[in-house]
Amino acid sequence: MPVALGVNQYGKAEVRVVRVLRDGDEHSLKDLNVGITLSGDMAEVHLTGDNANVVPTDTQKNTVYAFAAEGVGEIEDFALRLGRHFARGFAPIRRARVQIEEYGWERLAVGGEPHPHAFRRAGGEVRTATAVCDEAGEWVVSGLSDLVVLKSTGSEFTGYLSDKYTTLEPTRDRILATAVTARWRHAGAEADWGESFAAARGLLLETFASTHSLSLQQTLHAMAAAVLEARPEIVEVRMSMPNKHHFVVDLSPFGLDNANEVFHADDRPYGLIEAAVHAIDAPPAGPAWNPYPLL
Amino acid sequence: MPVALGVNQYGKAEVRVVRVLRDGDEHSLKDLNVGITLSGDMAEVHLTGDNANVVPTDTQKNTVYAFAAEGVGEIEDFALRLGRHFARGFAPIRRARVQIEEYGWERLAVGGEPHPHAFRRAGGEVRTATAVCDEAGEWVVSGLSDLVVLKSTGSEFTGYLSDKYTTLEPTRDRILATAVTARWRHAGAEADWGESFAAARGLLLETFASTHSLSLQQTLHAMAAAVLEARPEIVEVRMSMPNKHHFVVDLSPFGLDNANEVFHADDRPYGLIEAAVHAIDAPPAGPAWNPYPLL
Amino acid sequence: MPVALGVNQYGKAEVRVVRVLRDGDEHSLKDLNVGITLSGDMAEVHLTGDNANVVPTDTQKNTVYAFAAEGVGEIEDFALRLGRHFARGFAPIRRARVQIEEYGWERLAVGGEPHPHAFRRAGGEVRTATAVCDEAGEWVVSGLSDLVVLKSTGSEFTGYLSDKYTTLEPTRDRILATAVTARWRHAGAEADWGESFAAARGLLLETFASTHSLSLQQTLHAMAAAVLEARPEIVEVRMSMPNKHHFVVDLSPFGLDNANEVFHADDRPYGLIEAAVHAIDAPPAGPAWNPYPLL
Amino acid sequence: MPVALGVNQYGKAEVRVVRVLRDGDEHSLKDLNVGITLSGDMAEVHLTGDNANVVPTDTQKNTVYAFAAEGVGEIEDFALRLGRHFARGFAPIRRARVQIEEYGWERLAVGGEPHPHAFRRAGGEVRTATAVCDEAGEWVVSGLSDLVVLKSTGSEFTGYLSDKYTTLEPTRDRILATAVTARWRHAGAEADWGESFAAARGLLLETFASTHSLSLQQTLHAMAAAVLEARPEIVEVRMSMPNKHHFVVDLSPFGLDNANEVFHADDRPYGLIEAAVHAIDAPPAGPAWNPYPLL
Repeated sequence: MPVALGVNQYGKAEVRVVRVLRDGDEHSLKDLNVGITLSGDMAEVHLTGDNANVVPTDTQKNTVYAFAAEGVGEIEDFALRLGRHFARGFAPIRRARVQIEEYGWERLAVGGEPHPHAFRRAGGEVRTATAVCDEAGEWVVSGLSDLVVLKSTGSEFTGYLSDKYTTLEPTRDRILATAVTARWRHAGAEADWGESFAAARGLLLETFASTHSLSLQQTLHAMAAAVLEARPEIVEVRMSMPNKHHFVVDLSPFGLDNANEVFHADDRPYGLIEAAVHAIDAPPAGPAWNPYPLL
Repeated sequence: MPVALGVNQYGKAEVRVVRVLRDGDEHSLKDLNVGITLSGDMAEVHLTGDNANVVPTDTQKNTVYAFAAEGVGEIEDFALRLGRHFARGFAPIRRARVQIEEYGWERLAVGGEPHPHAFRRAGGEVRTATAVCDEAGEWVVSGLSDLVVLKSTGSEFTGYLSDKYTTLEPTRDRILATAVTARWRHAGAEADWGESFAAARGLLLETFASTHSLSLQQTLHAMAAAVLEARPEIVEVRMSMPNKHHFVVDLSPFGLDNANEVFHADDRPYGLIEAAVHAIDAPPAGPAWNPYPLL
Repeated sequence: MPVALGVNQYGKAEVRVVRVLRDGDEHSLKDLNVGITLSGDMAEVHLTGDNANVVPTDTQKNTVYAFAAEGVGEIEDFALRLGRHFARGFAPIRRARVQIEEYGWERLAVGGEPHPHAFRRAGGEVRTATAVCDEAGEWVVSGLSDLVVLKSTGSEFTGYLSDKYTTLEPTRDRILATAVTARWRHAGAEADWGESFAAARGLLLETFASTHSLSLQQTLHAMAAAVLEARPEIVEVRMSMPNKHHFVVDLSPFGLDNANEVFHADDRPYGLIEAAVHAIDAPPAGPAWNPYPLL
Repeated sequence: MPVALGVNQYGKAEVRVVRVLRDGDEHSLKDLNVGITLSGDMAEVHLTGDNANVVPTDTQKNTVYAFAAEGVGEIEDFALRLGRHFARGFAPIRRARVQIEEYGWERLAVGGEPHPHAFRRAGGEVRTATAVCDEAGEWVVSGLSDLVVLKSTGSEFTGYLSDKYTTLEPTRDRILATAVTARWRHAGAEADWGESFAAARGLLLETFASTHSLSLQQTLHAMAAAVLEARPEIVEVRMSMPNKHHFVVDLSPFGLDNANEVFHADDRPYGLIEAAVHAIDAPPAGPAWNPYPLL
């Protein structure tokens, strides 16, 4: 049976570049993990192994380092610069997708004074940006991963659908914990990325904290909506939030009460709640959410 | 600005169920990691926290265990049974996606004889299956992950596009190594799943070994095409193959030659090559490839 | 040939307990990973499978939860309470080792005000404590893991021993980066653990920042010595510090300078520097540093 | 308070070398992860940063590659060659410890015939070897890690010590599953390493399978003793075996029996059973079991 090539993409993943900025004796850091994904006229390389249209992934890596030499700036801008370079600079390349993870560093203090060139990794949370560039346009998606949050009360789960396999008891008071992955699509390719990121992140956290939760879905939606309502430059928010279950330990065999004080933090299985929320008049998403990796 | 709920899904991830089958004294094992993802009339739970349409993820977990009690069989069938249960059994649930990882076990031998109830985990490779069930139909995707393969010769990379950031030298002889993730979509929801899986896996491996590689893209396409050409029950193959770089170590400072004998196995960055290949007359994929997780 | 049982120990590892403290509406969290390791008269269970001397690991887990109900306090105290319980409460148990990891949480703010029950995981850094209790005494070791720090200058590496396999160029200016694992042994089993931990951690960080580094060994020793010199309650410091290599990228093929501005953060291989430093008059370490796990 | 330098060691960790052996068209692979750890006259580098006695870890890495060019052979021999080089070749270096992980590869077949240069990674199991060389002698420790095994019956746990925190019910039939880490010390520095490894591994597996288990301690001891009794070249065996709990799922709420057929494979917490068993007349272990890493 004849076969045909479908969706395809290739590139260099996980280019780990650290850029030191030197302002006299005072240094600052940009610590990035950059992935490039290209697509275009790639039938020949798949069918015959003719690499004439292939920008080697090694070259992509070199380009990341060379561009970093000229400065990084906000990761959305760095992703756009790289994306435009690949999408516009090579005839066979029709689309470039650049995804960046940024790891935060905090300046150490010595004797109460900030040190000019010593730093501490700020934590598990990661800031992300993706730029997609092709002939039809440019899309920028900002985001964050591994933002682990927990409410020790102010969360219920009741009134759910029940069947013969349901054993869960409704609860008016539970721990709600999750590791937020959020991505938000911008209306355009220009913004004050740093200010926008800080504001969106703050809205996610404030809304998580202040929403009395009836379900993780409701909390997720409130978080996304808060960003969309306050930030006109953002037109869509997608979130993936595992329900990191904390089970109340039964201490009654030991003659002890447990008034939601002692919990077992379980690993697996876990609930996984995912949704997109968008502004009513959001422009089309185009290839912004195309899966990467493909599988 | 008014907002709207977009794509959304929820469920229980990573239900780790081990099913022992007892045939007299002789046991066998099914060791699974099951994920359920449901979608449907979920506006209320997002907007108001009303859980009336929500099948709790805890119930989903219970259902996996209860269904396992009745037997597992091939994981494609187990995924379909669970998928149909959720998609057909609850009015608000319109679609169920069930994804399963299966971990292989080999029987231990004692004195040259296979032991009836002692086993060894077979390795890193994982067999996978996904079933998607909704009102419009059923889709089954089989696959495998973490199949790590390597060719120590028979791989070239030359003739690629070059620009001012290109430093890579062409090579007529390199190591080609990858960790194959492959997923293949079936024409329908009935097949001899076990036989089909073994044949597809064998074709992937044989084609990897016997193809003289001019690029990883060409190898990927040849592997996918081999499956499609030999197996009419399979209509699309998607693959994701990292290029696990093995760099020839420069031993000249030590007065030693290195005729492709000593390599450094690098971790990051790595190339990532991804493509879909389908039969010309493949039926529509519907929701078979919808991303999970969403982000 | 006759065989004999040597060193042995057993216990429950990774009890993940989260303790919520409720002070009216204001909550706080203790998030712990607790491991228990017991040893004693265990010949029979190894030789014949007679479990009469075995406190089940399931019981150990229950005990952690029950003790947590009574309050956790500083992890050194919690480890001691558990250690004494097991070492003193069961005739066949001669020694108990309790090791605890504590994960930090920061209170979220809403409208600039600290929220009473919403928290954010503070980062990758982990506080640790180990208590060992036996008939001969008690030992307490505090510590931390995964404290990732980096200096973008102020680090040299020159004057090393050279042989025919040496290709490294000396450098007067390099990035020095590491993930600190430190453990410090206390003189006794009583201290203001929280204040002591904060002070020791601060000394490690300040010394890392302010020491002009000629080698990672020198930096390590200075960090340990700073703690010992300032904190009389601490008598020995052991540290394990990987040299997380940051390589200057050669940008000359692209006509670009790289004055220590663009680095590749490599994963493997890495240097690993380890040492113990102790006060001259430190009391004997006894079993404080016995390996756990054994292998 | 004056301080003193205690135990210390340093080296290069995780040198990932792949050695291709070419016998005409037929290739074979050695895939290794090598760590070097040196100790000796290292006071100056710690106290003043004088590196005159320091063999750079970069040189250590180069040496691994250069030695690999001359052939690898059995990993015990490769570790000894490297260990002797460092311990004997540099005046300030008094002891070298070389630890190697070997990853197995299986030859792929095409049309039923073994392929000359295409391979599949054999699984999660890892073969290990450590050589320690100093002025007093040489020690060789072989071993394996991540050998995951399971018995679906033939395991009991009863008759244990009980207290007020005990809730576990005794059982006459449970799943016993573990991931074996084993290390065995050789009498000397010469042996038929490959044959010895295969035999020891076989004895561990056969004994695990054929021992009716009353406790994991008993199983561990039987496995170790079987090796010592059959293999005179091996004088001590140390094992670390997590009890990978498989809990019988309670299906009674769904009107279903569960006669040890449906299990939940849990992650944490887990039991951890560790012991050393040695031949009565074993020579002293010297530094063979010194901890690496130190913490």
